[in-house]
Amino acid sequence: MTTAITNEQLFVKTALASWNTTAGRAFKIFDSLSDEQLLKEIAPGKNRGLYLLGHLIAVNDAMIPQLRLGEASYTYLWESFVKQRDRAVSDLPPTAELRQNWKDSLAQLSEMLSNLSPSDWLERHATVSEEDFINEPHRNRLAILLSRTGHLSYHIGQLVLIDKSL
Amino acid sequence: MTTAITNEQLFVKTALASWNTTAGRAFKIFDSLSDEQLLKEIAPGKNRGLYLLGHLIAVNDAMIPQLRLGEASYTYLWESFVKQRDRAVSDLPPTAELRQNWKDSLAQLSEMLSNLSPSDWLERHATVSEEDFINEPHRNRLAILLSRTGHLSYHIGQLVLIDKSL
Repeated sequence: MTTAITNEQLFVKTALASWNTTAGRAFKIFDSLSDEQLLKEIAPGKNRGLYLLGHLIAVNDAMIPQLRLGEASYTYLWESFVKQRDRAVSDLPPTAELRQNWKDSLAQLSEMLSNLSPSDWLERHATVSEEDFINEPHRNRLAILLSRTGHLSYHIGQLVLIDKSL
Repeated sequence: MTTAITNEQLFVKTALASWNTTAGRAFKIFDSLSDEQLLKEIAPGKNRGLYLLGHLIAVNDAMIPQLRLGEASYTYLWESFVKQRDRAVSDLPPTAELRQNWKDSLAQLSEMLSNLSPSDWLERHATVSEEDFINEPHRNRLAILLSRTGHLSYHIGQLVLIDKSL
């Protein structure tokens, strides 16, 4: 016997499927790039793949506090991979460690996101006050998820430019 | 007096806001690029801005039949800007015409999308059969919108790489 899915659950399921598809696409790209290829730029003078790897770990992980679901785990990556430009910080974590962080972070997020109910998704996100949220109910957790899904797609569009012939 | 917004309306509002924000960002970028800059590549040997302009018009416009809302207007762009790679077709429409198509297409979509009710959004999209849709209700119109929003973000990530110093 199947339990009928409500419309609200369907909206959530569709949005989560979009996140999971996009995250899976990014996962596959990083997996296909060797450590040497990660040191290549997406275009002359632009970010390297390695920078985007650290950047995406940090930004995705920051969703956890933004969604008011707990503490971020990789806040120490923020300085080198978000606040500073690529190459501004030379002392970066080993690539193998970043690859592991990336996997762990995506798995943790996938678990957390799948546990939210439709009404959980419509609760406010962390950067809107309870007062403002009354008049701006679209500033909810779902808006954060859609924004971060778009952020991932944006950088996937750049990662596919890395020349894999070498 | 304000009418309370339902949860279903909120889900739709949040997804539409994500599309509109992303489309607005793409709009701003194309608007900021001169005709000469549109002829530049996003990276050496990759697509030119002009190709991405035609590509995004064609793919966004194709949402109309995919959402089962009517006929597409710019199917004639499909060959040069989707099926073929950049430069494979030399006889492209004038840039001014593409810029106008882009504006018209976004305005038309914005109007169409804003008229759908929450239950309209959960109806099947055109490439899933009525039979399959019974077991796969996530293959709905909203899934198409989220997918095309991601597609836009992907190419925005590339368009920002165009060197605007010349």
